[in-house]
Amino acid sequence: MNNRQIILAQRPVGLVDSSTTELVETPRPVCGPDEALIKVGTLSIDPTIRTWMNDAPGYMVPIGIGDVIRSGGVGVVVESKTPHYHAGDVVSGVTNWQEWVLASRENKFTIIPKGLGLDVATVMNVLGTTGITAYFGLLDVGKFKSGDVVVVSGAGGATGSVVGQIAKARGAKRVVGIAGGAEKCAEVVKFYGFDECLDYREENLSRRLRTACPDGIDIYFDNVGGEILDAALANIAMRGRIVVCGAISQYNAMEQPRGVANTSMLIVKRARMEGFLVFDYAPRFLDAQMELAGMVHNGSLVHHEHLVHGLEKAPDALNLLFSGGNHGKTLVVVDETVQLG
Amino acid sequence: MNNRQIILAQRPVGLVDSSTTELVETPRPVCGPDEALIKVGTLSIDPTIRTWMNDAPGYMVPIGIGDVIRSGGVGVVVESKTPHYHAGDVVSGVTNWQEWVLASRENKFTIIPKGLGLDVATVMNVLGTTGITAYFGLLDVGKFKSGDVVVVSGAGGATGSVVGQIAKARGAKRVVGIAGGAEKCAEVVKFYGFDECLDYREENLSRRLRTACPDGIDIYFDNVGGEILDAALANIAMRGRIVVCGAISQYNAMEQPRGVANTSMLIVKRARMEGFLVFDYAPRFLDAQMELAGMVHNGSLVHHEHLVHGLEKAPDALNLLFSGGNHGKTLVVVDETVQLG
Repeated sequence: MNNRQIILAQRPVGLVDSSTTELVETPRPVCGPDEALIKVGTLSIDPTIRTWMNDAPGYMVPIGIGDVIRSGGVGVVVESKTPHYHAGDVVSGVTNWQEWVLASRENKFTIIPKGLGLDVATVMNVLGTTGITAYFGLLDVGKFKSGDVVVVSGAGGATGSVVGQIAKARGAKRVVGIAGGAEKCAEVVKFYGFDECLDYREENLSRRLRTACPDGIDIYFDNVGGEILDAALANIAMRGRIVVCGAISQYNAMEQPRGVANTSMLIVKRARMEGFLVFDYAPRFLDAQMELAGMVHNGSLVHHEHLVHGLEKAPDALNLLFSGGNHGKTLVVVDETVQLG
Repeated sequence: MNNRQIILAQRPVGLVDSSTTELVETPRPVCGPDEALIKVGTLSIDPTIRTWMNDAPGYMVPIGIGDVIRSGGVGVVVESKTPHYHAGDVVSGVTNWQEWVLASRENKFTIIPKGLGLDVATVMNVLGTTGITAYFGLLDVGKFKSGDVVVVSGAGGATGSVVGQIAKARGAKRVVGIAGGAEKCAEVVKFYGFDECLDYREENLSRRLRTACPDGIDIYFDNVGGEILDAALANIAMRGRIVVCGAISQYNAMEQPRGVANTSMLIVKRARMEGFLVFDYAPRFLDAQMELAGMVHNGSLVHHEHLVHGLEKAPDALNLLFSGGNHGKTLVVVDETVQLG
């Protein structure tokens, strides 16, 4: 009757290692009035989790030392003392890295509708914040229009791969990915259907972007920040838009990063750089989910999930995001019996 | 019957010096069909001139070696073979650094209306691109609204001082300047009426901005780039806007600049950074000029012009912008007899 949890033991310097987290066992939480007890099935492993481990200002308070690692996830309701949930409901929300969690007034979950015809992993990838981020970032922040030249970094990742596919489906003139290594780049072109993919580990990215996008970049969807952002700025088109979604190259930085030097290109090209957080779009999530589910069903959106089995593997799974060792959306399966009906 | 001109002798490294430009004499241009001959009165000395001296991509082609230095200015028509101009018209346009220039189909000038009740220097400052840049940058790019907290760098400069005064006149909650040195800062508060002005030469600008703007910066109007931009990013408010107008701290840079490190604040605060060029607003210049002229007449917009006498002093006048040795709009008087009627 215990609850295995992974807590923050100390703040990491650079990558998460064995001293960062600790696996502990506490009593399984008891379902009180207006609460529901949820058995956690799968955890969503996202780069932003790493930012919450730092004691630095961000869009959420840092995870406290000794607290369970904050994380999204999916689970099944096993007991409910509220009319909002029923036993057997499969729900998504903030589960954290643990086996059991309570839904309450303070921690609300969303019931995943039955009959989607999609499995849990697909729902967590394409219909989860990963896919929704791609959707609103490209369309709302980036103001995508047919005929745009779109460049996406982290193109083999869960968000980047969806960005490129939405752009292709909606009539982009050209979609160019940026990813790490020849294998990833080949996957971005062959599996996700980008027109081209540039390996950022090779030299002269800025020059290669110029060759790939001779008329400039209308939208650069930035998942990585740093030098790649600078190379994109150097090639931005007139009235170009840079969608600042993430800065994964900076999340484990142990020194002050070099910084972005080409900001004056914003003047030269009357361009715009804008950040966003997907949570601000919550009232419109369903719009994105309906379109994305439709794209999966009609075959215009392919996706891949990278499953890691075992709660205790969650810290390693997080590091995969930074080494590039994952392929597609990284998920940790805590209990594989939790599935959609 | 000669035309004294200042040409680009070689591209400067860092500040302009005696090897950068050369004073030459060529024959005075002859007015042909569809042309008008203009005697140059006053030159507008703007930081962007320095960027045109570099052999680097920009929003205009670089000035060629041996070419007259490109510059805006005001002059008087002394002979006209086109119905578009009449002798005695005072006109503004691209005069370049010289005593005589031809208006033609390729180089059009704007006739300054009589009866404005303002002198040439005031018109070149407040009603010229300097003031118009402030107007569209704050209102159109920055989407200023009453109650905003506005921070302006280069606050003692020609554009920055106007930005702060428009913001005050339109109901800003607080207007904070950033300038170099105690004397400049005092001038920004006492003469231009900012609520406060921070000296960027002192330490911990970011912390001092936090004290000056405890609820964050709604609009940062950036004339300087570099570390000051980073300090503003660190203090940007939710949905804040950064208007990228110039990057004067970078124009003489001899090394790769350090770069802007805090771009992930754009995500945390869902903020936007956008560049612009005033020339894109040409069809709407008159709107800005009418409002700005009204503000001068009703006393809500004070201004100062820094006059440097003599064409040969133009290179030194340009350097004043980077040393901060100027007060207000820097103008070079080539012929003081050219005045508005």
